[in-house]
Amino acid sequence: MKKIQMKENIEINDLVYYKNLKIVQNKDYFNFSLDSVLLPCFVELLPSTKKILDMCTGNAPVPLILSTKTNAKIYGIELQKNIYDLAKESVKINKINNIELINDDVNNIYNYFKSDTFDIITCNPPYFKYKNTSILNNNNVKSLARHEITVKLSDIIKISKKLLKNNGSLCIVHRTERLIEIIDEMRNNNIEPKRIRFIYPKKNSESNLVLVDGRKNGKVGLKLLSPLIVHNDDNSYTDEILKMFGK
Amino acid sequence: MKKIQMKENIEINDLVYYKNLKIVQNKDYFNFSLDSVLLPCFVELLPSTKKILDMCTGNAPVPLILSTKTNAKIYGIELQKNIYDLAKESVKINKINNIELINDDVNNIYNYFKSDTFDIITCNPPYFKYKNTSILNNNNVKSLARHEITVKLSDIIKISKKLLKNNGSLCIVHRTERLIEIIDEMRNNNIEPKRIRFIYPKKNSESNLVLVDGRKNGKVGLKLLSPLIVHNDDNSYTDEILKMFGK
Repeated sequence: MKKIQMKENIEINDLVYYKNLKIVQNKDYFNFSLDSVLLPCFVELLPSTKKILDMCTGNAPVPLILSTKTNAKIYGIELQKNIYDLAKESVKINKINNIELINDDVNNIYNYFKSDTFDIITCNPPYFKYKNTSILNNNNVKSLARHEITVKLSDIIKISKKLLKNNGSLCIVHRTERLIEIIDEMRNNNIEPKRIRFIYPKKNSESNLVLVDGRKNGKVGLKLLSPLIVHNDDNSYTDEILKMFGK
Repeated sequence: MKKIQMKENIEINDLVYYKNLKIVQNKDYFNFSLDSVLLPCFVELLPSTKKILDMCTGNAPVPLILSTKTNAKIYGIELQKNIYDLAKESVKINKINNIELINDDVNNIYNYFKSDTFDIITCNPPYFKYKNTSILNNNNVKSLARHEITVKLSDIIKISKKLLKNNGSLCIVHRTERLIEIIDEMRNNNIEPKRIRFIYPKKNSESNLVLVDGRKNGKVGLKLLSPLIVHNDDNSYTDEILKMFGK
């Protein structure tokens, strides 16, 4: 494990390599995960795609991976300063010039952008509902990233409704158990689920994660993409996952 | 292909064997299909299950298969007399005594049953929306079975809300492209989708069919079951499908 000393005295525990990218992370906060790769691989980029926003961007794996596929301008917004700093460092060391990072609460997003701005919005949001009784991670940074403390699913969808262009795409990855709520919230905000893909840890497992692509003011009509199986029976990664990781 | 002469001069073109069952069908109307096996295999039968209703029962494949798994009383309702007659004949030749068939429009169901009667309602409904511009099958019997002419998805769900016991289960098989509508209609009628299973023709195909189990007044919380793949890459049936057919 590499240790590198960054400016501002942040000690980085790890550098993750994804294809040609170096992604700076801190294992005390969270690790680069499968979701971070699944989401940008699920997004449909078009030649006409000009502006993308990634909410709850964390150390920016989604903008970083998207930047290898498009020249569109990609904005990422992250509340936590120490995680935002990791993201900044990744953008710098990879010499990427189409990512811009914002260190602020997602709920302040309207201070930065007007309505009908984005072709695509992505989000790998906090997965867990926050209740006063929730046993939160002692690590505050992790708790904020994992629990809906400062931003809820419904906030993300409401913001997307406003900031997406007409027919713009909101792509999120979330826990499958919250699928019904995602569909409900999207439709209540005139975002029509158009593409869904389920992720199954193994071919005989229940699905744990889901990718949903909703289009602002989109017509009814759903494509349910092929199942994405992560592991073979012997626990090795399936060919499709290896291919996503460029192996 | 066997030809057998039935009472009332109905000529039967085919007898289909499912495990130990003989199912009478008429190829001019429709064939015994995969959906007819998937749905009863998806239903969760409990020792406490006493009454089951199958709406749009056709030649009653769902009641027939369920009757091999439970002693509960199973009612089937079918509008079309000539198809109802096929169903009656199957019940007779298999000497089944826990199935009762009704030849009437589903919309008249309240003439037969009171509210809060059923533990389980099943339905393999007409899949296609009917528009005046729809190119209907010239065969009227087939058209009624395939298009939402006399009964719509929303009718089936409204009837289920009324006839299911509290926490009773509505299990339907439908085209995946109508998933969002199914979820919406269920929730609008206090039927909470609790188990969903997608059927994929092959492992790299989009899903074409979906099984949904909603519970009347059920708590939020979804299980998304493992993907059901129908064919191997060489077009042979997968082991799971063969097992369902008792092969």
